[in-house]
Amino acid sequence: MDETRTVNVGLIGLGTVGGGVAKLIARHHDEYLRAYGIDLRVRRACALEEERAAELGFTGDAFTRDWRDIVEDPSIDIVVELIGGEHPATEIFEAALGQGKHMVSANKALLGRHVERLAALAAENGVQLKCEAAAAGGIPIVNALEHALVGNDILCIAGILNGTTNYMLSRMDAEGLDYDEVLADAQRLGYAEADPSADVDGFDAASKVAILSSIAFHTRVTTDDVYMQGIRKVSAADIEQARDMGYRIKLLGIARWTAAGIDARVHPTMIPEDHMLANVSGAMNAVFVVGDAVGETMFYGAGAGSFPTASAVVGDILELARPIAEGSAPAAESEPYESRVPVRSIADLETRYYIRLSIADQVGALAPVVAAFAHAGVSISAINQLHDGETTGVADGACSVVFLTHTAAERDVEELCRALEALDEVASVASVIRIEDVEAWSAGAEKND
Amino acid sequence: MDETRTVNVGLIGLGTVGGGVAKLIARHHDEYLRAYGIDLRVRRACALEEERAAELGFTGDAFTRDWRDIVEDPSIDIVVELIGGEHPATEIFEAALGQGKHMVSANKALLGRHVERLAALAAENGVQLKCEAAAAGGIPIVNALEHALVGNDILCIAGILNGTTNYMLSRMDAEGLDYDEVLADAQRLGYAEADPSADVDGFDAASKVAILSSIAFHTRVTTDDVYMQGIRKVSAADIEQARDMGYRIKLLGIARWTAAGIDARVHPTMIPEDHMLANVSGAMNAVFVVGDAVGETMFYGAGAGSFPTASAVVGDILELARPIAEGSAPAAESEPYESRVPVRSIADLETRYYIRLSIADQVGALAPVVAAFAHAGVSISAINQLHDGETTGVADGACSVVFLTHTAAERDVEELCRALEALDEVASVASVIRIEDVEAWSAGAEKND
Repeated sequence: MDETRTVNVGLIGLGTVGGGVAKLIARHHDEYLRAYGIDLRVRRACALEEERAAELGFTGDAFTRDWRDIVEDPSIDIVVELIGGEHPATEIFEAALGQGKHMVSANKALLGRHVERLAALAAENGVQLKCEAAAAGGIPIVNALEHALVGNDILCIAGILNGTTNYMLSRMDAEGLDYDEVLADAQRLGYAEADPSADVDGFDAASKVAILSSIAFHTRVTTDDVYMQGIRKVSAADIEQARDMGYRIKLLGIARWTAAGIDARVHPTMIPEDHMLANVSGAMNAVFVVGDAVGETMFYGAGAGSFPTASAVVGDILELARPIAEGSAPAAESEPYESRVPVRSIADLETRYYIRLSIADQVGALAPVVAAFAHAGVSISAINQLHDGETTGVADGACSVVFLTHTAAERDVEELCRALEALDEVASVASVIRIEDVEAWSAGAEKND
Repeated sequence: MDETRTVNVGLIGLGTVGGGVAKLIARHHDEYLRAYGIDLRVRRACALEEERAAELGFTGDAFTRDWRDIVEDPSIDIVVELIGGEHPATEIFEAALGQGKHMVSANKALLGRHVERLAALAAENGVQLKCEAAAAGGIPIVNALEHALVGNDILCIAGILNGTTNYMLSRMDAEGLDYDEVLADAQRLGYAEADPSADVDGFDAASKVAILSSIAFHTRVTTDDVYMQGIRKVSAADIEQARDMGYRIKLLGIARWTAAGIDARVHPTMIPEDHMLANVSGAMNAVFVVGDAVGETMFYGAGAGSFPTASAVVGDILELARPIAEGSAPAAESEPYESRVPVRSIADLETRYYIRLSIADQVGALAPVVAAFAHAGVSISAINQLHDGETTGVADGACSVVFLTHTAAERDVEELCRALEALDEVASVASVIRIEDVEAWSAGAEKND
């Protein structure tokens, strides 16, 4: 370590995360040099606003508005893409990898759709592509899957992968508020965007499920393969009912390795209140991972925010910088995932269901409803009429009734819901929430001696 | 990856963990080859019992009773030491590292005392020493500290690092049992050893605190530097009182970076019931880590057991095996930790305290007790006499009284306890439990934009 060379980073994007990365590297420069022998500098940053760049210390030659200046700069070793979205991020990846630059990115939307193609491009060009921050923000889960847990067959990943929706569900639970009230408040406080769709409809979590399952299962799963249902239909009444039954409702991203293919889905999920994931509240994230050898593990932390995400980005940068500082090169990205494990259709899911119906409040209304369950082959384990005041948005002359099922097939429940909607006695199928069999997540793990 | 060479492991010790490692490598051989291009084999195993070795497939040349046969075998790339204890483990380390073998070990007792010296020996010999399994069993915390979180200044590590004591405290909490009852049951069920001292007196957890703080803070902390108090004095009454106050009692290993040096200690600790660590129950372990950038994180999993520990060992082996399989060599261990950050004395700790006294059940007994607090400069925030039947082991004519203090200095509380023991009115100082200020763990973390 007597002779080290400066490792130059090119930073594209100086928003929340990019700004955090710039500050973190500047503040820790001397320490990275002393502790790891890495003289790490942001050589050049690309942003739209010159003023923002200047605030962060990027002026003159160190600032550019054109990302091409970064990817074509021969002095830059590592290109860090933090602008998000599909374009021009795709063009940046292609150009930077083509120029033989190692890349670090937090772009979950792009990587959720194209991680395999971009990893293959990195491999072709003899460079590495790292994306810890795209999988669960500051939580070091990609590193764990690729290194410390690499001796395991990963059996299941189940995570609270979106902070906005976990914040909303936590407040609905703690304060008995309904979805609309909490959303408005979350938007006011900056926890939710003006257009909350990517969060509340599950797209953000589905992108992360795609990235995590591609890495964990050594196969290709894209965001479009992941079944997605958001939290818009979850009501305060559902949350209270869940609590009475000993459950919490969380928006989970689940990826399981099963004999019939990969089960990959995002939806509101009832889990037992004593499960580790049930106690993750507020905007925090957590990823529960089951490996055949290690058994049950969980990784908890901030899934977003400027410095937590920067922590993951800088961790990736330093991994690449170590060999560069010593005058060698990081290993090229491995040729990706030859295997093509099919992703199961959600219709093949078998689980228990919580179904809340708005039913005509009249004698005899229940009979045709119960008959519809029987006809669809969905077995009922409990029926519970909710008391007045427990639900909002119920039509006049209707009441809310909760049905719990035994294990049923999703395709049968879908058919059931269509049949229920067609009944005169049913005003609406207000919510359908899957009750997860969390014990099944560990099926296939080794028994300890 | 077209041409790979076999990576040969020498395994010393075929007990619970060694057996798990042998099985894991055998079962996953084809997968490691297919997924990572690593042809990993246990070339030779050393054990005392030939029968055990044969059961695991080590016969003939692949079995030896002499560890020297392993460390001197030129075909062996990586020596894995899983016998534990100080001797002959020390001699194995010295001989294997001297022979230029990379090493993997789960030996917390040895590494807690000598990690720095052994890492220096590895560096001198141009090889690597990896010890993920020694820090928290299957939980991949060393890897996280050395890689994904490497961009952070680590501010605090607080962990449930011993499964036996967490199992015991969980059952005391859930069932209202006292220490002796639970210990007997834990021994019967195999959760505690016949001589439980290394677990219940905190030595095992203190070894792990030493290893984790050496790695996290880039300095030398040995087990002997870590203040240690076990759970023998924790009673069902204390646990119930804690619960009434909104706390749980956990045996925590705590390592904090403070301006006055490193605060490193193991003791029963009261933490708020809604803290993530409070919900870790049974024999499971968890490590709460605060980094200046990432903020609060937690890593949860099995801290012991044959396959979870093997998961960590095999993760380390595969990391070393990757470059070897490709015909290059793993980087040598870095020259260790130049810095010598002092470890603070426990006497310098300032926190709140829960103190339970057995006091003479007579009018006027409280006055000299309260005077003793005042004299020692320890300010009382609450006094609560426990009801009959809440405590066991209280002398006739005495009653249990709980005192909660405001923030006080440990040295003053020590003096106070000596003064209390000397009072005629005090039959005994039954327990002193620190109430941790968990908010302070995150002091110094960056504020997010």
